Amino acid sequence: MNVFLAELIGTMVLILLGNGVVANVVLARTKGSNSGWIVITAGWGFAVAIAVYITGWVSGAHLNPAVTFGMWLYGSISGAMALAYVVAQCIGAFLGSILVYLTYKRHYDVTEDAGLILATFSTGPAVRDFRWNLVTEIIGTAVLVFGVLGIFNSHNGIASGFGPFAVGILVYSIGLSLGGPTGYAINPARDLGPRIAHALLPIKNKGHSDWEYAWVPIVGPLIGGGIGALCYKFLPVFA
Amino acid sequence: MNVFLAELIGTMVLILLGNGVVANVVLARTKGSNSGWIVITAGWGFAVAIAVYITGWVSGAHLNPAVTFGMWLYGSISGAMALAYVVAQCIGAFLGSILVYLTYKRHYDVTEDAGLILATFSTGPAVRDFRWNLVTEIIGTAVLVFGVLGIFNSHNGIASGFGPFAVGILVYSIGLSLGGPTGYAINPARDLGPRIAHALLPIKNKGHSDWEYAWVPIVGPLIGGGIGALCYKFLPVFA
Amino acid sequence: MNVFLAELIGTMVLILLGNGVVANVVLARTKGSNSGWIVITAGWGFAVAIAVYITGWVSGAHLNPAVTFGMWLYGSISGAMALAYVVAQCIGAFLGSILVYLTYKRHYDVTEDAGLILATFSTGPAVRDFRWNLVTEIIGTAVLVFGVLGIFNSHNGIASGFGPFAVGILVYSIGLSLGGPTGYAINPARDLGPRIAHALLPIKNKGHSDWEYAWVPIVGPLIGGGIGALCYKFLPVFA
Amino acid sequence: MNVFLAELIGTMVLILLGNGVVANVVLARTKGSNSGWIVITAGWGFAVAIAVYITGWVSGAHLNPAVTFGMWLYGSISGAMALAYVVAQCIGAFLGSILVYLTYKRHYDVTEDAGLILATFSTGPAVRDFRWNLVTEIIGTAVLVFGVLGIFNSHNGIASGFGPFAVGILVYSIGLSLGGPTGYAINPARDLGPRIAHALLPIKNKGHSDWEYAWVPIVGPLIGGGIGALCYKFLPVFA
Repeated sequence: MNVFLAELIGTMVLILLGNGVVANVVLARTKGSNSGWIVITAGWGFAVAIAVYITGWVSGAHLNPAVTFGMWLYGSISGAMALAYVVAQCIGAFLGSILVYLTYKRHYDVTEDAGLILATFSTGPAVRDFRWNLVTEIIGTAVLVFGVLGIFNSHNGIASGFGPFAVGILVYSIGLSLGGPTGYAINPARDLGPRIAHALLPIKNKGHSDWEYAWVPIVGPLIGGGIGALCYKFLPVFA
Repeated sequence: MNVFLAELIGTMVLILLGNGVVANVVLARTKGSNSGWIVITAGWGFAVAIAVYITGWVSGAHLNPAVTFGMWLYGSISGAMALAYVVAQCIGAFLGSILVYLTYKRHYDVTEDAGLILATFSTGPAVRDFRWNLVTEIIGTAVLVFGVLGIFNSHNGIASGFGPFAVGILVYSIGLSLGGPTGYAINPARDLGPRIAHALLPIKNKGHSDWEYAWVPIVGPLIGGGIGALCYKFLPVFA
Repeated sequence: MNVFLAELIGTMVLILLGNGVVANVVLARTKGSNSGWIVITAGWGFAVAIAVYITGWVSGAHLNPAVTFGMWLYGSISGAMALAYVVAQCIGAFLGSILVYLTYKRHYDVTEDAGLILATFSTGPAVRDFRWNLVTEIIGTAVLVFGVLGIFNSHNGIASGFGPFAVGILVYSIGLSLGGPTGYAINPARDLGPRIAHALLPIKNKGHSDWEYAWVPIVGPLIGGGIGALCYKFLPVFA
Repeated sequence: MNVFLAELIGTMVLILLGNGVVANVVLARTKGSNSGWIVITAGWGFAVAIAVYITGWVSGAHLNPAVTFGMWLYGSISGAMALAYVVAQCIGAFLGSILVYLTYKRHYDVTEDAGLILATFSTGPAVRDFRWNLVTEIIGTAVLVFGVLGIFNSHNGIASGFGPFAVGILVYSIGLSLGGPTGYAINPARDLGPRIAHALLPIKNKGHSDWEYAWVPIVGPLIGGGIGALCYKFLPVFA
């Protein structure tokens, strides 16, 4: 129960801070309007760091079904537990998105572009080509899971109080470098939970929730997380 | 007395560096004119980190009545001491604002927009709607106090020399992600002390001090700080 | 064999994240289009940090023939081993570049400027003057190798879990400060491997691979790495 | 002799990376042209961090006559030694500036604005008013020395491998927040050494070296450093 709550709260904080920075940059008349990619990627990176600080010692701070799936393949979490993690993550992401809506309520009211409104919930591709969008999400998430396993390899001797910051830098890096084509979901819950919130919330100028694309940021990260975990596990070099 | 002085000096340094970066970005003819939201939020984040390095080991570096109020609810500071903290913070914030004025004196002289001048003292909403502005301040400050308690949870084993930097990253993150609607006061002293300074200082082109709005960045952060502290205290997961 | 694989994988990750950020900034229609020098340099800095976290404890994470050459002069690696390192680094850089191509496939398709396409593989000078470009690469790489030796000097007592981040900051710094004239290859493998990939890949609007310039980011970094290592070794002050 | 050499080399690296970033941002046709205040301040902050990593364990890494003066007032360095430090710092700053010139040689050739060329050597005020410029330099340097003493107070227990990074963040912060009016010399050697280099180097389109202003970034930082050190020493709270 504690790990369930930790994953839920952690993912909620992650999405509040993560989608919060997107809202700040893309919605109309905020103080951070059009402040650019460095703001988006720093915001998501630090969002991960803070969420991992808060919940890491309770649940390991997966906060991401692709990480949980990878850890299950890696062998460090049971299937039943993994399922509970994923449910908690999706609920947390949904609630985090509601909090973003409340934080930026008046800016949602004055924003007229439905595409920008959706962008503060879910990811969408810059060039629409589901096959290649999938490839991008796979590669990004493989780097995420491979990188997390690399950072926390016991040979690194990373201090427990520094680890969450290092994971934040990893996500910051993935955003800067691999986020260009799809907006780096690299996390099925981060995309699905807010997309459901988008569908339900009574936002003035919202359009459709782009359900057509919704499978890409679910399937891609799961494949990528699996590849990252298996590569790390079976490459003799990191044994 | 030592903790009083520490809170006073710490908040003075916080406001000097925090409002200093706003002055650099919004006043006329500075080297950092119009350098954007990343500069503002990095400046405030590092301002907090430096102030906490200087005073953390003396007073715990609240530097913020909302944090002090939260800690009082949490049970880690007495009511009388909390009151002394808050007085010290407000005096420190007032003095820090005077130092910003001295640092940027000639730029205040050549800036003609009264709104920008006020922005280097106190926060103001991007879209004026006190009810929703209040919600934004509540959420931002709840994340601040909840995050501070999370970072310093003894299970994290955060090194004493790294903790102040981590708090700086937390504030950096809140600015990036939740600062868009109100400029994230998330600290009653940070807003009130400088607003008094604004009212008193003989600045050439200054306008009114917007006292109408002044209660929002006082009440909102106190409510938010309380919520953050109580959630952290009573959620079984972090016990 | 393990160190060979570590250098290969580490350099692959380095180039995926490093050239990935260039692709994000310069290719058409990405989310990070034209997001500027801070994005490029942060992206490369964190790319190095992540790659060093993953492989540092296995191979020392040279990931760069100039570093390997410097370490050979310094006396901490044998000639035969150094050669194996360099081969692994070049293969890794080549493969990393292929991954960037796959990640940004559709953006390569829609980018028409052949110069920008080449920039996502190899470096090129801002002002074309091979003699002075060489000087720039020498100075940048000397700072890199001198800085790495300085950071990891045992007198610094740098924590093993923090070292990779510090090296990332060093590369971030070199990019910000010394990267202006040549785009800071400071690493022969980083430049040569991707240039070969550029020559081989079937990219729609690509032009020539600028082989004329290719020797500069090989020779310059090797000279600079040598100078950095020898200065550090023979200056009595750091003995 | 070792500390002399350490201060000389450290200040040389500091100025190479510090003035290097200014050259990248303001000279013509570099890759970082017009990349803004965040690049300048990050570049200077990391320059300090790297220089302190390299020399901190040898000489304490003052790298700045204002710090040395403050430490002499504070009582942690003798007068004769302090003088040697200052001489080494000025020589190092001069040499660092020569290295910037070599790194950006072709960009100096193609830059026509004499004011921008001077800016890559020495600081200059945004609004020319020597009295208030002096005040700005005093406040900035007081924060620097006060902050350094605060960070390294033994009660903070800062790790020796993390301290240099924290000092870098302090200088990053001062740049962001207090650098707007004068470009934050906060270091007499950082300004004087390069100004002499500017006067001597055969730069194509250079103008005068603005010797009129030269005393401000010498006198201001010395006064500020003294104030910072004495405040920290005599405030009972930090005893």
